[in-house]
Amino acid sequence: MENDMRKIGMLTSGGDCQCLNATMRGVAKSLYGSGKDFQIIGFEDGYKGLMYGDYRVMRPEDFSGILTEGGTILGTSRQPFKLMNEPDSDGNNKVELMKKTYKKLGLECLVILGGNGSQKTANLLSEEGLNIVSLPKTIDNDLWGTEETFGFQSAVEVAAGVIDNIHTTAYSHGRVFIVEIMGHKVGWLTLYAGVASGADIILIPEIPYDIDAVVEAVEKRNNSGKRFSIIAVAEGAISKEDAALSKKELKEKRKAPAFPSVSYEIGHKIQERTGQEVRVTIPGHMQRGGSPCPYDRVLSSRFGAAAADLIINRRYGYMVGINNGDIVNVPLKDVAGKLKFVDPQSSMVREAKLLGISFGTFD
Amino acid sequence: MENDMRKIGMLTSGGDCQCLNATMRGVAKSLYGSGKDFQIIGFEDGYKGLMYGDYRVMRPEDFSGILTEGGTILGTSRQPFKLMNEPDSDGNNKVELMKKTYKKLGLECLVILGGNGSQKTANLLSEEGLNIVSLPKTIDNDLWGTEETFGFQSAVEVAAGVIDNIHTTAYSHGRVFIVEIMGHKVGWLTLYAGVASGADIILIPEIPYDIDAVVEAVEKRNNSGKRFSIIAVAEGAISKEDAALSKKELKEKRKAPAFPSVSYEIGHKIQERTGQEVRVTIPGHMQRGGSPCPYDRVLSSRFGAAAADLIINRRYGYMVGINNGDIVNVPLKDVAGKLKFVDPQSSMVREAKLLGISFGTFD
Amino acid sequence: MENDMRKIGMLTSGGDCQCLNATMRGVAKSLYGSGKDFQIIGFEDGYKGLMYGDYRVMRPEDFSGILTEGGTILGTSRQPFKLMNEPDSDGNNKVELMKKTYKKLGLECLVILGGNGSQKTANLLSEEGLNIVSLPKTIDNDLWGTEETFGFQSAVEVAAGVIDNIHTTAYSHGRVFIVEIMGHKVGWLTLYAGVASGADIILIPEIPYDIDAVVEAVEKRNNSGKRFSIIAVAEGAISKEDAALSKKELKEKRKAPAFPSVSYEIGHKIQERTGQEVRVTIPGHMQRGGSPCPYDRVLSSRFGAAAADLIINRRYGYMVGINNGDIVNVPLKDVAGKLKFVDPQSSMVREAKLLGISFGTFD
Amino acid sequence: MENDMRKIGMLTSGGDCQCLNATMRGVAKSLYGSGKDFQIIGFEDGYKGLMYGDYRVMRPEDFSGILTEGGTILGTSRQPFKLMNEPDSDGNNKVELMKKTYKKLGLECLVILGGNGSQKTANLLSEEGLNIVSLPKTIDNDLWGTEETFGFQSAVEVAAGVIDNIHTTAYSHGRVFIVEIMGHKVGWLTLYAGVASGADIILIPEIPYDIDAVVEAVEKRNNSGKRFSIIAVAEGAISKEDAALSKKELKEKRKAPAFPSVSYEIGHKIQERTGQEVRVTIPGHMQRGGSPCPYDRVLSSRFGAAAADLIINRRYGYMVGINNGDIVNVPLKDVAGKLKFVDPQSSMVREAKLLGISFGTFD
Repeated sequence: MENDMRKIGMLTSGGDCQCLNATMRGVAKSLYGSGKDFQIIGFEDGYKGLMYGDYRVMRPEDFSGILTEGGTILGTSRQPFKLMNEPDSDGNNKVELMKKTYKKLGLECLVILGGNGSQKTANLLSEEGLNIVSLPKTIDNDLWGTEETFGFQSAVEVAAGVIDNIHTTAYSHGRVFIVEIMGHKVGWLTLYAGVASGADIILIPEIPYDIDAVVEAVEKRNNSGKRFSIIAVAEGAISKEDAALSKKELKEKRKAPAFPSVSYEIGHKIQERTGQEVRVTIPGHMQRGGSPCPYDRVLSSRFGAAAADLIINRRYGYMVGINNGDIVNVPLKDVAGKLKFVDPQSSMVREAKLLGISFGTFD
Repeated sequence: MENDMRKIGMLTSGGDCQCLNATMRGVAKSLYGSGKDFQIIGFEDGYKGLMYGDYRVMRPEDFSGILTEGGTILGTSRQPFKLMNEPDSDGNNKVELMKKTYKKLGLECLVILGGNGSQKTANLLSEEGLNIVSLPKTIDNDLWGTEETFGFQSAVEVAAGVIDNIHTTAYSHGRVFIVEIMGHKVGWLTLYAGVASGADIILIPEIPYDIDAVVEAVEKRNNSGKRFSIIAVAEGAISKEDAALSKKELKEKRKAPAFPSVSYEIGHKIQERTGQEVRVTIPGHMQRGGSPCPYDRVLSSRFGAAAADLIINRRYGYMVGINNGDIVNVPLKDVAGKLKFVDPQSSMVREAKLLGISFGTFD
Repeated sequence: MENDMRKIGMLTSGGDCQCLNATMRGVAKSLYGSGKDFQIIGFEDGYKGLMYGDYRVMRPEDFSGILTEGGTILGTSRQPFKLMNEPDSDGNNKVELMKKTYKKLGLECLVILGGNGSQKTANLLSEEGLNIVSLPKTIDNDLWGTEETFGFQSAVEVAAGVIDNIHTTAYSHGRVFIVEIMGHKVGWLTLYAGVASGADIILIPEIPYDIDAVVEAVEKRNNSGKRFSIIAVAEGAISKEDAALSKKELKEKRKAPAFPSVSYEIGHKIQERTGQEVRVTIPGHMQRGGSPCPYDRVLSSRFGAAAADLIINRRYGYMVGINNGDIVNVPLKDVAGKLKFVDPQSSMVREAKLLGISFGTFD
Repeated sequence: MENDMRKIGMLTSGGDCQCLNATMRGVAKSLYGSGKDFQIIGFEDGYKGLMYGDYRVMRPEDFSGILTEGGTILGTSRQPFKLMNEPDSDGNNKVELMKKTYKKLGLECLVILGGNGSQKTANLLSEEGLNIVSLPKTIDNDLWGTEETFGFQSAVEVAAGVIDNIHTTAYSHGRVFIVEIMGHKVGWLTLYAGVASGADIILIPEIPYDIDAVVEAVEKRNNSGKRFSIIAVAEGAISKEDAALSKKELKEKRKAPAFPSVSYEIGHKIQERTGQEVRVTIPGHMQRGGSPCPYDRVLSSRFGAAAADLIINRRYGYMVGINNGDIVNVPLKDVAGKLKFVDPQSSMVREAKLLGISFGTFD
């Protein structure tokens, strides 16, 4: 009976990453193979597709062969969560538009793959009465409630690969190289990529740096006969001085920045004070792209299966996460709006310091 | 003062793997950078070097540039732990030979990188009064006391990469492909590589298979219009019938095996019963080799730093491990002789089944 | 006008390889973008699809996103070229079956991607009056008339990667490792992969080996303090003794081989005579699989464009090849049935010998 | 007899690349294995080491295990060839300094690995009477006299890999992505990386672009339903207008550029005129780094062996090159100061156009 068919909406939201397809495949394979009659409706370009009814009915074969493919077959966008509370250009309430599509299509639930902003919107929709299962997507690894997000380790591989390449050129030319890694608010990606590729100095938002300490670390390497230094800098790395400012003061100060990014500023100061040649490399968007690494494919497949499990059992309002190797279901309201930061006192940071890595501080 | 120099012995034992050098680098960088006066003595080819005094005094630069290099700069061997209790060819007691070298060189402690057999010997030496810090090396991930061993994720990458390559050829020719993955006693590597690369059937020692269920799984794919099936088989995969035998009966049965390995036996039966072309690929030793993946490099670096931390604080008799993301120190006596198996009831296996993966059983 | 539509058949034949999709994409993009009205008919599983009319009308989007994907979206098979002259199981003449489908569909020409056997059949069809454009597919690089075939360099990458991985384990354990590389009749793949990965000994069909020379080369390394040796052996490597036999004598001798493959035989002899531990690794089908390397993607794209160019200009009866960096069109009759062998006197072999690589000979 | 020892100087000059070590290993293995008594003197940091006598006597083991390692074990610098004719800071003539070291050390010849500038200096030294063998190093592939330079294909792999990664993110977000590839004067790297990774538009110095044609190509894709476009732009890409200026006029115009690089300028114009979101990625120095690809390792090993062959036979004044698959020796005076450009009428460009790739022109 047609009536027995359960219709599941699905969308990918926010910046893309390597494991969106692998995760959706996990959900789909588990639903289609459950022996129950599921239909998956894929919305295009994230919440935008949900608002304006841009969707297609997915076929099982649409999810075949995408385990190793980066990007998202559904497309994604950063809309509209930054302006969620403002009406759209036609004056419509965005949440109402989404609810309308959801109801019109007779969806039983929505599967949402997204990062911080997307989880917030997911929670909002959940509070509005929609059935939601969400999945923790982000190369930033900054979602509260899960030890790891999918996309993170794949991005670590890309970023570490960039530093590996830079390593040989830095060594050969005896230069200081700064590699700017994605991460405006948190430093997970920079920390892991930096340790993985033997960076000498790692600067992350959670540990404001002292430029004197950075320069000292470079000079210490020079004095010990090393020809070069590698510095992994998060996009959001911040100096002690700037970290002490109020939000307003900081905004004011950064109105007309003297450098295109924090890396150039740091590089300029190092070159000025050590006389050594400094180069900056910014891999940028390539950190989100390419084929997911096997570690991430396992994680994504498990996440996808676990999301299907929730759906099969009609348990809604959760984000799927992982903790200590086991899948966990975290209430959406606990996740929304919270960031998971690198703890400067953590085991990981402590070991990095033992290895001789400087975080740009004097302690 | 020369007297203040602390001499640390180091050796790598058992089958090689991708992160031995990265781990030793972690220990060395942390010791040399500690501000204390450490000297590292490297023994050649594992415990053999310790028995017969084959060693070299390491220089800090010996550990430079090896973070991404597979293998071990010290060499390794599987001797002598299989015959630890028998005298050597000259009639000497092996443990006594090791103790003698240790004392003659005035070592403060021994850093041992090894898997199961090696940890057992490490514990034996610890019980004999030597100061030991050990590190969990194995692509098998079967060491008790740590969630993960170094080498494991790198081997997963290699094995998953092999299956990825096989995937395109299986698809194009419409064949059944069996890939035999390392693991005589445990199935971690097969399980992770299989899930990572979208294997349809996974056979591991911990879950004895029923050949009827395997054939049914292949036929189910054929009936659903899939042209091919991929089967990841652990070296130690075992049928229900064989698993029911006593050790003695099994040994007797396997005296003159009809097939070179379990994969060929399974392949033969599938081809016989489905008529479909079956091919077997055995990547073998390449699973231990090549450059470690970034994930493993982070893990190894942390392990190395943590081992150095124990040494700096003169805390001996431990294997360094990781649990829930944090470093743990596990008493050697708790580790020795215990294997960590895949739990058939675990979250991971459960999710794999949700994904439609058959473990060759009818449940 | 419908009448103006030009219908082009396409098929992939023989063992699959990494660049079949990339090459077909090249043909398709160039045809569809030519401003003329082309329709591409894809036959399934090689000539079999042509014989039995298994085909689908391709859409432009079928060729999107496949540049980096291994395998073939059309499927392939080794049928029927080995038994081309025998009737099929229903007693039908195979060539007649193919001609019938060709005519029934109103094809203007056939694009055939294949290796040696497939080119022979392509020529046969051309002589029968069909319009043919063929493309040189093979990881063996043994097609006459083109400096390089697509698939070759990708297979070199895979095979060299296997030897790279083996390198670290050989070094760490001090063993002799034999890696058996695909190539029954020609040694291109073994030669290039061997030189690329620093093999010490390379054995190929074109240069019959003397086991005494092989053993001597291993011992020379041992005597010079190297702990290990790597031997790259082509599947079709042959000893001087066997090379001197007639075809009949050789067949007789190999009726009940003592070893599963030539590598095991060579390995056995080395271990027997040097006492050193020898291991054999056979990567097998993975050499055909995985993503094509960028070099091959360029070659394939160029080949595809050049094939389209021939079609657009209605020039038939050619295989597209490359010579000295430029595309060439080689008459099919010149290609069919000819193999391109490694010349033992070539620049490449000479340089390999200068590098100290032994080919298992005493000269 | 000491007298019989032949002393060979070696240096790497200019920007580093992936195959410097592999090439030096090729020279060294061939010399050491020749049965003659060679000593290799390695100069540090290029010609600088030769000027000031910074060198070390190399041991055979220094060249072991470096086949797959990027960078250069000798270090390199861009000095002094840009200011070859000016005296150094102490007022000394640079050529004289080099000749003095050469003679003082009793060198028989110098092996020079370098690109354009370095070959020019090599020729200068040759004209001054020094014995020179040079090797064609550059990721730019712009050296006259050789079909291919070492480093080029490895850089193609890196650059194509970057575009591959960008591809998935461009697709998912429906953006125009510009990837800026190294190459100030020539477009080989951009052309090959662009074709290899399916770029839609390729802009190189040899084919000045018309911004209207670029915009039209983007719009054509949009109109045909493609969500995204990928543009590979060489650092030295130039507009038709700028290409028409005199050197002086161009210099004047570029004094205070409105954009950090050509990519940003092009991106700005596309965004302005199409309204589509445009992003720029500049992989930069990573294109020179990392492990060489197997293709390049074969080429480098052959080049190295051929250079050794020249030395063994005391034939000096040549750069080693490759032509039509065979090694060639090109007189240094023919190489010096000449660049090899992409021919807009070449087979390669023609095929790229057939594939639908726009070069930013209306023809």
